[in-house]
Amino acid sequence: MTYKTPLDDIFFNLKDMGLLEQVLALPGYEEISDDIVDAVLHENAKFVQEVVAPTNRDGDQQGAKWDNGKVTTPASFAQAFKAFAEGGWQGLQHSPELGGQGFPKLISAVISENLNAANLAFALCPLLTDGCVEAITQAGSEQLKQTFIPPMLEGRWTGTMNLTEPQAGSDLALLTTKAIAQGDGTYRISGQKIFITYGEHDLAENIVHLVLARTPDAPKGVKGISLFVVPKFLVNDDGSLGKRNDVWCASIEEKLGIHGSPTAVLLYGADKGEVGEGAIGYLVGQENYGLQYMFIMMNAARYNVGIQGISVSERALQQARAYAADRVQGNALEGSAGPVTIDHHPDVQRLLMTMRGLTEGGRAVALFAAMCNDVAHQHADEKTADLHRAQYEYLVPIVKAFSTENSVEVASLGMQVHGGMGYIEETGAAQYYRDARILPIYEGTTAIQANDFIGRKILRDGGAVSRGFIAAMCDTVNALNQHQDDPALAFIGTQLEVAVQAYQNALDATLEFAARGQMRSAFAGSVPLLMLAGYVHAGWHLANAALKSRERQSDIHRQKQATAVFYAAHLLPRALSLSSAVKAGDNVQEAFSAVFS
Amino acid sequence: MTYKTPLDDIFFNLKDMGLLEQVLALPGYEEISDDIVDAVLHENAKFVQEVVAPTNRDGDQQGAKWDNGKVTTPASFAQAFKAFAEGGWQGLQHSPELGGQGFPKLISAVISENLNAANLAFALCPLLTDGCVEAITQAGSEQLKQTFIPPMLEGRWTGTMNLTEPQAGSDLALLTTKAIAQGDGTYRISGQKIFITYGEHDLAENIVHLVLARTPDAPKGVKGISLFVVPKFLVNDDGSLGKRNDVWCASIEEKLGIHGSPTAVLLYGADKGEVGEGAIGYLVGQENYGLQYMFIMMNAARYNVGIQGISVSERALQQARAYAADRVQGNALEGSAGPVTIDHHPDVQRLLMTMRGLTEGGRAVALFAAMCNDVAHQHADEKTADLHRAQYEYLVPIVKAFSTENSVEVASLGMQVHGGMGYIEETGAAQYYRDARILPIYEGTTAIQANDFIGRKILRDGGAVSRGFIAAMCDTVNALNQHQDDPALAFIGTQLEVAVQAYQNALDATLEFAARGQMRSAFAGSVPLLMLAGYVHAGWHLANAALKSRERQSDIHRQKQATAVFYAAHLLPRALSLSSAVKAGDNVQEAFSAVFS
Repeated sequence: MTYKTPLDDIFFNLKDMGLLEQVLALPGYEEISDDIVDAVLHENAKFVQEVVAPTNRDGDQQGAKWDNGKVTTPASFAQAFKAFAEGGWQGLQHSPELGGQGFPKLISAVISENLNAANLAFALCPLLTDGCVEAITQAGSEQLKQTFIPPMLEGRWTGTMNLTEPQAGSDLALLTTKAIAQGDGTYRISGQKIFITYGEHDLAENIVHLVLARTPDAPKGVKGISLFVVPKFLVNDDGSLGKRNDVWCASIEEKLGIHGSPTAVLLYGADKGEVGEGAIGYLVGQENYGLQYMFIMMNAARYNVGIQGISVSERALQQARAYAADRVQGNALEGSAGPVTIDHHPDVQRLLMTMRGLTEGGRAVALFAAMCNDVAHQHADEKTADLHRAQYEYLVPIVKAFSTENSVEVASLGMQVHGGMGYIEETGAAQYYRDARILPIYEGTTAIQANDFIGRKILRDGGAVSRGFIAAMCDTVNALNQHQDDPALAFIGTQLEVAVQAYQNALDATLEFAARGQMRSAFAGSVPLLMLAGYVHAGWHLANAALKSRERQSDIHRQKQATAVFYAAHLLPRALSLSSAVKAGDNVQEAFSAVFS
Repeated sequence: MTYKTPLDDIFFNLKDMGLLEQVLALPGYEEISDDIVDAVLHENAKFVQEVVAPTNRDGDQQGAKWDNGKVTTPASFAQAFKAFAEGGWQGLQHSPELGGQGFPKLISAVISENLNAANLAFALCPLLTDGCVEAITQAGSEQLKQTFIPPMLEGRWTGTMNLTEPQAGSDLALLTTKAIAQGDGTYRISGQKIFITYGEHDLAENIVHLVLARTPDAPKGVKGISLFVVPKFLVNDDGSLGKRNDVWCASIEEKLGIHGSPTAVLLYGADKGEVGEGAIGYLVGQENYGLQYMFIMMNAARYNVGIQGISVSERALQQARAYAADRVQGNALEGSAGPVTIDHHPDVQRLLMTMRGLTEGGRAVALFAAMCNDVAHQHADEKTADLHRAQYEYLVPIVKAFSTENSVEVASLGMQVHGGMGYIEETGAAQYYRDARILPIYEGTTAIQANDFIGRKILRDGGAVSRGFIAAMCDTVNALNQHQDDPALAFIGTQLEVAVQAYQNALDATLEFAARGQMRSAFAGSVPLLMLAGYVHAGWHLANAALKSRERQSDIHRQKQATAVFYAAHLLPRALSLSSAVKAGDNVQEAFSAVFS
């Protein structure tokens, strides 16, 4: 088997950590039972392991191909996508009224991790479709919903997200794609979009592009951006496909990784279609509110990209662990009768446990965040819902940045476990290293996440949400300190306490820089602060996991405790160096101005 | 210009930091003046910039090709290699008696950095040849020296290093290649070697393989390994080439990076040659001492691979810096009249300064180590020479591990600076990310370096060399603390003091684990200890650089001080987390045994 879904750890989070119980108790999930969740996750495991995982290598090796405007995905993708559609997986998390199955995010996050681990390049297509469905569901007219969402949930059509232009990447204020109202309720769209994932492909009958563009007299900057649905083929009243719209794939990029996923340059209004000049588009919501609507999609996509980080990490870990258990090289440290498998060597153990700590830590944070999202959407009590909404929004940049930055490290360590063999493409470890590298970049770079984190999640509420979490972390420290008889728990308690204090100090420093108006001192440490938050949150969940595991003596509980100890020893202390960096903001800012002036 | 040798920083190390003065004062270097060094380095800069750097991209894109035993290097390599040979660059550091120019390592290290930065895959060929020359010079007979070394120094022939076999990578005890004495002073070699860099190619007339093999009744393990010279073509008495020897390239690897460099599978004794069955080889030194001789070559190669790390870092830094100074995106943090180049944004500045701090820090450590090597070889006073030999040997694993691990991080950050463009192969940033990843693996993985560091460089002398360095670091702390009027120097002093203490604590913990016989607790932190040493040594040199820069007000001196401040703020604190990990050895070791049993 090339990949096995980590159901042990997933169920540990869902059940031992109590997340599933909290979510299934919410109004609206009365019909979802533990048994149903079990069945869905086992069915999903079987599907991704048997159908999707085997497509990963040839997706990388063949890659997507462009020929005269047509894009062909790797040979094995079509059949896997058909099975994906038939399995109803695209609809899992979406509204039952539009053909979905209404599962909570806690479950869809797991499904998403598994699909991405099986084949990241393949899974990007459903990931973008999810975001497209979400944005139309929340901001589109009833007609847009009824026309475009059911076919996407059936896996007959797919969705995309068209933001970037050559001069407008992180800075969407610079975008220039035009939209001109035709008086009949439609618009004509013209311009060039780049980096459009699955912007053109052969897996579906139609592609639903969500496109950011400006109307002629819109305000400058981000307040003059509107959002449009632009289908590749227009849709007749009976839902059948009509004329080919004026949107064309000019080329696809040659990328470092995710070769199976076509990254398209799309031309709107190049006048080669059956509709005359300009692609026909339909306004979503109101003019000039496009960025707000797109943020719905981007937030979902950011969370899901965080999940992708966990996926790549898990897959790299599994491959490295299997290799280390098989490769014989070197005697045991104690000296011995002969060579041993390399997972007997302390540094290989360190590499594997680092990979494991980062992967399981990231998963714990992400699934906790999914629970917050579900409570925010479904809880009857408004205050409880609001608190969890604020917590989810605070956690999204952490999930995105922490899991994706870590995936690059984990994939790199996976190569290191393989030694020279890791550098040979045939081994497969290098693919994860190449694939992972896009994750801290797309859907908002780590720096963009950090701007969001400091600006909207820390400064806006004066650090209130973060203080709430820190109080809960201190409770965990106290609980650990009750167990002085248990050296492992006592050790975790000591380490966690130091790390939480380091986080508190860094937050205080950031708030103080801002209060003094020293924004450059604050933002010189924005990414370190965000990563610090990630290390501490993950360490907190793993510490709680160690507490929960204390009484149980199964393999998974023993290993969970060991992972928590290792994390507390080798990974949690990174909080110290990151905190030190954040606090030095004034010195750093002065150094920057000496170099960049 | 695609690449510019960083002569400013190189001369800062050589001159402001006093390394060149120390080395040129040594017996044996009377004929080398400051002016000669200036001329050589400027000539070298011109050569690598104009001739070698332009071959980097097509080396990556075309790659080396195998066809029926013959290997073709990328089209532009032949002409660059011819110019390299004609320039006399291969002989720079080698003995004048064999055709070299006898420059100190301090200078050859600089030349090596520049060549590798210009084209890592290309520079591997001279790098291996250097090691081969070094081993034959030190351990070979007069006849072997006279026959094989001059043509290598002229660039007509090249050298290789044949250690690895499929079952024997890090663990050379497992190798099985056979050598059978023929009674005429020659041996017949048979077996398979893998991962042989430039094991076959079209750049030179002949290839001199250094091969580890076992004679029939040799002791088991590493004590029964002998070293042989096995030329691709036998050499007639007049130095002309004779029969094709029985060594063949069965294939080359498809690798993640360094595509221009052929990585060969070599078959010895496959009986397809003009010499009958078995490749003809010549014993180097005595039977069963092969590993000692190979270590001569490996230590030189390890140092040089450390240099490669600095090279890739420097090139990635230059490309990222240029991109950031050109790419317009986003308003300045203060709000402003319009978008600015991205090097105005604090997090891009953080990325670039991290790249710079790691690159310049690594360079400072490596050039200091080269000085130690030169003093060790040339100093008239035996005690001084011995001390510097011990210091050099202690520094080699630091240079190798620290610079190469950092090169992976620096190349990755370079991609991050580019945003989405970085992920497109055409941009070029991804090549460094792919190329760098081999560096912490080959010539001894980071874990192998860490074993060497703890076992031979720390435990063997009870930490004496490290204590000597720590005392010198404390002197720097004291010197910095004299400058309470200068906030930058005072800040560096505070940060360095904390980091040096963290290193001291980690060393003490390691010595204590060993004293208690808890070797697994010690080795659970071996790589963290080694990286910690790297961070502290680099931070020490940069702190000294800040002191030296204090009175000068040129751009380079202002920037050097800013780099030292940034390093002290963001990079030196990593010492804290690494020290914490090392000290937790007992806890970690228990966690390992719960998972790996």
